Amino acid sequence: MTPQIDPRAGAAVKAADRAHVFHSWSAQELIDPLAVAGAEGSYFWDYDGKRYLDLTSGLVYTNIGYQHPKVVAAIQEQAAKLTTFAPAFAIESRSEAARLIAERTPGDLDKIFFTNGGADAVEHAVRMARLHTGRTKVMSAYRSYHGGTQQAVNLTGDPRRWASDSASAGVVRFWAPFLYRSRFYAETEEQECARALEHLETTIRFEGPATIAAIILETVPGTAGIMVPPPGYLAGVREICDRYGIVFVLDEVMAGFGRTGEWFAADLFGVVPDLMTFAKGVNSGYVPLGGVAISGAIADTFGKRPYPGGLTYSGHPLACAAAVATINVMAEEGVVENARNLGASVVEPGLRELAERHPSVGEVRGVGMFWAVELVKNRETREPLVPYNAAGEANAPMAAFAAAAKKAGVWPFVNMNRTHFVPPLNATEAELKEGLAALDTALSAADAHTD
Amino acid sequence: MTPQIDPRAGAAVKAADRAHVFHSWSAQELIDPLAVAGAEGSYFWDYDGKRYLDLTSGLVYTNIGYQHPKVVAAIQEQAAKLTTFAPAFAIESRSEAARLIAERTPGDLDKIFFTNGGADAVEHAVRMARLHTGRTKVMSAYRSYHGGTQQAVNLTGDPRRWASDSASAGVVRFWAPFLYRSRFYAETEEQECARALEHLETTIRFEGPATIAAIILETVPGTAGIMVPPPGYLAGVREICDRYGIVFVLDEVMAGFGRTGEWFAADLFGVVPDLMTFAKGVNSGYVPLGGVAISGAIADTFGKRPYPGGLTYSGHPLACAAAVATINVMAEEGVVENARNLGASVVEPGLRELAERHPSVGEVRGVGMFWAVELVKNRETREPLVPYNAAGEANAPMAAFAAAAKKAGVWPFVNMNRTHFVPPLNATEAELKEGLAALDTALSAADAHTD
Repeated sequence: MTPQIDPRAGAAVKAADRAHVFHSWSAQELIDPLAVAGAEGSYFWDYDGKRYLDLTSGLVYTNIGYQHPKVVAAIQEQAAKLTTFAPAFAIESRSEAARLIAERTPGDLDKIFFTNGGADAVEHAVRMARLHTGRTKVMSAYRSYHGGTQQAVNLTGDPRRWASDSASAGVVRFWAPFLYRSRFYAETEEQECARALEHLETTIRFEGPATIAAIILETVPGTAGIMVPPPGYLAGVREICDRYGIVFVLDEVMAGFGRTGEWFAADLFGVVPDLMTFAKGVNSGYVPLGGVAISGAIADTFGKRPYPGGLTYSGHPLACAAAVATINVMAEEGVVENARNLGASVVEPGLRELAERHPSVGEVRGVGMFWAVELVKNRETREPLVPYNAAGEANAPMAAFAAAAKKAGVWPFVNMNRTHFVPPLNATEAELKEGLAALDTALSAADAHTD
Repeated sequence: MTPQIDPRAGAAVKAADRAHVFHSWSAQELIDPLAVAGAEGSYFWDYDGKRYLDLTSGLVYTNIGYQHPKVVAAIQEQAAKLTTFAPAFAIESRSEAARLIAERTPGDLDKIFFTNGGADAVEHAVRMARLHTGRTKVMSAYRSYHGGTQQAVNLTGDPRRWASDSASAGVVRFWAPFLYRSRFYAETEEQECARALEHLETTIRFEGPATIAAIILETVPGTAGIMVPPPGYLAGVREICDRYGIVFVLDEVMAGFGRTGEWFAADLFGVVPDLMTFAKGVNSGYVPLGGVAISGAIADTFGKRPYPGGLTYSGHPLACAAAVATINVMAEEGVVENARNLGASVVEPGLRELAERHPSVGEVRGVGMFWAVELVKNRETREPLVPYNAAGEANAPMAAFAAAAKKAGVWPFVNMNRTHFVPPLNATEAELKEGLAALDTALSAADAHTD
């Protein structure tokens, strides 16, 4: 598609946005949203014709890139056929999306409850776990994000929870493994893993195992920093859950659907949870969709007893048609394999090479197309380049990094003192190298803020 | 469109549904979802070719009927142009949808925060109210429904809340006016209104006015029974909110976008809330979308201070394009006026005439295309045809009514002892009369269960 270049049209879009659109997670008067005219594959462009290579996949969700022609066509066909229908009916695209997802989920997670996104998927997973166990508390990790609605945000272990925490109920937080900033004074991954499991189990014993309905973890924590868990950790959590009759929920809203180089990140670790939440990559967000994959045992709990939850757009036909097309495209075009292969052959070595040359890089970590670059003031002390939850002037070094990246033609994912390298999973080798080269330039701006 | 009639295809859709789709609000083994092959305008059909006139508008959301060609075309065009983009950017369809909505909302509700549906709209409205006031409690009415996520369902005043109530926090419920089943021993609408306001204000005084962040009401309660509030009630609540510094939230997820014969039900009463939630009719659910319309004062609270809430699909371009097309279609085709006019000239007299002839009808009430028919065992005692929250055998009379309606070729909306007459807002006079005739037949089945 030829980029639409029309600064006056862009000014009108921007003006109406500033007059009427209230934006997520923002001080409304302090933001300056870029007006985007179009997007295709791994790129998007503004109304002045400036193009950006998207290293964010939107908010880590356009796993097949923008405007994949087969998925666009599937949306158009479903729109012509049946755009919407109420949830109590059997609908072709709803049935087929559920079948294709269940075919790929680990273990016996074969029943699919569809939601509109990740937050409500987490809300419902928690409800299912509470009713299945008859218990109230849910344990979640610091350095996590589980969604923006009340229950989901209360489970979240980052500052986005704080303002809504007065209404928190029944949530207990713990520390998950993260060797680079170990809470357990560990020196090896093995030690970190063993101590993190001991910490979790001890906390459970002191909370009262019979009070805990569920443990929820992002299989690989996403926005919080892409901390790939050490070998054995998730299997250990699975064992602990089994020991105490606790429902194990894996949140794969960001990590699922190929991001880690597997259909689900749980497959990296050979672990089967009782409930697994998804959204984003399920249809690359072309139409809002999320859901919960449910084990046989939990589905049975709601066999003869009604599940007390639902929503008007559950299994929305248009969203499900986009999921069917997306999953089929990913299978036909080897998108998951591409993420695994180019992640290992291009992204990982490229990032490690940058780390060697840039003193601002404290650690590079990740898997597949899911990478974090942690920026520090000082490699020895590991002091973050900006303080936790910094804003304004305190955040200037990261703002300088982001501005340099944009100037170099890439749109970077930035969270606290990190940039995440999370391009579309079907990015080409050339695009990935272009992204790495721009990152090289931008990291020089970060280097200027090191000790 | 020619109905697709293929029983074998229907059987496959049904089989995959039963194997993999977990349905809302249901005991999964006790349901038997109808496989729907297609829909157009006010009708849908199954794979055997049986057609139904849809008296439910889905779940009271397809306000312009199924497959409106202009909205389908707009979805197809937006899909070709830009299906999705992250929320932090200015996007043409996002800006235009916000502008068109703000143009129609009452008062200064000119900033639009987009969500995926009604439940998360309510979640965010409550958060905004709490942060704006610095208070925690929210008051909501019995006989209400505000959504299926944790905070929204805790605000709900129907049995769908019960199973999730252990985690309820900061919610105080009160009784709203409903003369037919008055909680205030009132005999006239004036008395009901005055006593309901006195009840609310007294409850506030005993809860502590300075602890209450918000009062949330459906402008016209929907699934709970379409109780049009008496003249003066909402204005009285507005006054009470102003007196105590409480944020007034009107939930127009079901009542908004023309259902009552006005763009928003608040316009029926000349009342301006501080926050107004919407979803469903905003784009007839062709693509999942909801939102909160925000007053200037509350938007200002988040001018220099970040609003701690958001979601990946906020202002989804495809959903917003469907909203733009839907609102324009409704304006061009006089859909709101149609709801007002045929509601008054066909639906209301038709239902009142049925009420005269059928002893099972206790009361008919509503406005526009938003009508409830309350079924009773006995008109004198007003005993409901089935008990509150009945299931199984206790619900047999309503099941018999629903079966008779389907046999007569209409799909009825049934909740407890009520059927709601809530067709698409652009239904024709002939369709409405067809629906009334089928209802006549079905009410005879209900009559058989009266004393």
